[in-house]
Amino acid sequence: MKKPNVVILGAGYGGLMTTVRLQKLVGVNEANITLVNKNDYHYETTWLHEASAGTLHHDRVRYPISDVINRSKVNFIQDTVVKILPDEKKVLMKNGELTYDYLVVALGFESETFGIKGLKEYAFSISNVDSARQIREHIEYQFATYNAEEEKKDERLTIVVGGAGFTGIEFLGELVNRMPQLCREYDIDPHKVRIICVEAAPTALPGFDPELVEYAVSQLERKGVEFKIGTAIKECTPDGIIVAKGDDVEEIKAGTVVWAAGVRGSRVIDESGFEAMRGRVKVDPFLRVPGHEEIFIIGDCSLVINEETNRPYPPTAQIAIQQGELCAKNLAALIRGQGELEPFKPDIKGTVCSLGHDDAIGVVFGKKMWGTKASFMKKMVDNRALYLIGGSSLVMKKGKFKFF
Amino acid sequence: MKKPNVVILGAGYGGLMTTVRLQKLVGVNEANITLVNKNDYHYETTWLHEASAGTLHHDRVRYPISDVINRSKVNFIQDTVVKILPDEKKVLMKNGELTYDYLVVALGFESETFGIKGLKEYAFSISNVDSARQIREHIEYQFATYNAEEEKKDERLTIVVGGAGFTGIEFLGELVNRMPQLCREYDIDPHKVRIICVEAAPTALPGFDPELVEYAVSQLERKGVEFKIGTAIKECTPDGIIVAKGDDVEEIKAGTVVWAAGVRGSRVIDESGFEAMRGRVKVDPFLRVPGHEEIFIIGDCSLVINEETNRPYPPTAQIAIQQGELCAKNLAALIRGQGELEPFKPDIKGTVCSLGHDDAIGVVFGKKMWGTKASFMKKMVDNRALYLIGGSSLVMKKGKFKFF
Repeated sequence: MKKPNVVILGAGYGGLMTTVRLQKLVGVNEANITLVNKNDYHYETTWLHEASAGTLHHDRVRYPISDVINRSKVNFIQDTVVKILPDEKKVLMKNGELTYDYLVVALGFESETFGIKGLKEYAFSISNVDSARQIREHIEYQFATYNAEEEKKDERLTIVVGGAGFTGIEFLGELVNRMPQLCREYDIDPHKVRIICVEAAPTALPGFDPELVEYAVSQLERKGVEFKIGTAIKECTPDGIIVAKGDDVEEIKAGTVVWAAGVRGSRVIDESGFEAMRGRVKVDPFLRVPGHEEIFIIGDCSLVINEETNRPYPPTAQIAIQQGELCAKNLAALIRGQGELEPFKPDIKGTVCSLGHDDAIGVVFGKKMWGTKASFMKKMVDNRALYLIGGSSLVMKKGKFKFF
Repeated sequence: MKKPNVVILGAGYGGLMTTVRLQKLVGVNEANITLVNKNDYHYETTWLHEASAGTLHHDRVRYPISDVINRSKVNFIQDTVVKILPDEKKVLMKNGELTYDYLVVALGFESETFGIKGLKEYAFSISNVDSARQIREHIEYQFATYNAEEEKKDERLTIVVGGAGFTGIEFLGELVNRMPQLCREYDIDPHKVRIICVEAAPTALPGFDPELVEYAVSQLERKGVEFKIGTAIKECTPDGIIVAKGDDVEEIKAGTVVWAAGVRGSRVIDESGFEAMRGRVKVDPFLRVPGHEEIFIIGDCSLVINEETNRPYPPTAQIAIQQGELCAKNLAALIRGQGELEPFKPDIKGTVCSLGHDDAIGVVFGKKMWGTKASFMKKMVDNRALYLIGGSSLVMKKGKFKFF
């Protein structure tokens, strides 16, 4: 009997979780498992704001994929996926192609600029290790240039963060913590630095408990962040941004603009002709593409409706990991011809949003928390992701233990 | 009797040496001594190539002026000198003015681009702590950007050094040593990096012993430097440089261009109406401005003729320090009305040019040397400058002791 080809695209939370669980569930002779990823490393997407601000080195947020996969069961191919041909059961990559019997699409997110002029050209986004490292270096270069120029341009020391959602707030928390060190390093008067957060919605962290939002905003303001809530970015230019609040239009000059207000699923989804909303496919209860039962889509490219609110779950690591776990289980059943699949039921344990390494807000198991307690919980969440994929040895290597 | 006002402009090798010697030679009641400097720190100009390459942190190449001056005898003013009015015995600064009875001008060097188009706008120069730090950050930003861009621009990884003189060669030595670390940090294939040195003269290190020059060039070539000797930079553009060798004109695309082929004395010299060649004043045997016996000019703004060769001594730290020592002695004599001044006689002990922290070439007390021996000697030279200005405690704090 022919062994089925299982191809997993992407080694983020969803894809890597699927791989490490599947390699435990099936034997060498039961399936050919192939994992495809652009890089030879996995990175903690939820830690990228730290690498971007420079509070955590980018090598601390990634680890080699070879550390967690079993090479006797999984073939790893380092390549970039270009397109999926569902009818031919083929995956086209930059440097080759693959055929599959079962496909897991876990290609993650991309930045979404909603067509706002200039954002793609002039703003940075916290998308991956490369872009995070570039943001860190860009800010440092702006600070280094300030004193080297005869004519001082104060706007070099202005950083605009577009969006006061989860990523924006967490990035701000790291940024304000980094500033004293950055100002010392580059002989900058801290009073010259401006950190501005622009959010179009009427509140920061929409959907979060209002009391916790107030705590987060006041903590960040105390550390120097200027919030412009209910204010939309109209355009990004080489010199900064143009914002509007009602009829009031204002230009903010800034050496660095980081866009943290929009994500979408991978463009490979659109390229491949799947029916999708911003690169997210509404999957069936078993996480499969309607009409293509052999294709599973998990993580940020999948769209799962929360039946309580009738709105999609936001794309999070928590959900991607749970989808990966289930996907591996269902794949193992299919490989063995045990047709009965299990439907996906997200188990949302809570949400914690960090405000730097020493502060956070969160709701965990329905309980509100903030300050050091929430911060401790955040690090536990971070370590848990490592544990689920790489076990305790990975936690020892890459985990966060500086609690206070 | 009125105490004379002694004003010293610049806290580089010459000015700071004058200050620390003078404060030892005269009593509190004998003179008002004022030191003016742009920054509140002194930096080791001869170590800036290390800070520029990123092999030595810029805080290791500087120390607070307050660490070495005696505040009961010396007033320190942090300000930028704009112009000297010799006839009014006045110094104009950005934020004030000073009158003097004796003036020591030790304002150091600036980069000289000889009118080559675009160099001032698009090339960096190793001139001070600010510019060195900016070069380091610029190179890092180019490397960080390389992988973050979808379309790879290999020229981001090309660094052009204009000039194979002392500074150019020493900078190249550090740069090639830094590359492996830099490539690891930014996930760059080392084979993609190009380091190109362009020199208009028919040899690298003109004036140096040819055997040592050959050693230096072959050591740097072995580590990856491409030399283009007898090749002139015609223009610097935002994309790189245009060079010519005879009739052959070539464009070299480069993300970083560092101009290390020309220095001149401070522009304050020209502003103040002194007769000068590229900001260097041909001083009398006592280091005074002809026609203004109360003004001493030392260091890179002074021009002293070597009577053996009938050519000016090159501006070096060695000479600046010796001029500062003599200037302090002569000032003390003048303050006390002991009219007899001592003429300046340079005592050139030798020259050592480093090729990274672990290699060098040099001629010391007439003896040629290279490799670890020369490298050891270079560090002794570096430590000696610290010792002469700040004594053994400064050597312990800032000295170089990693010999092998």
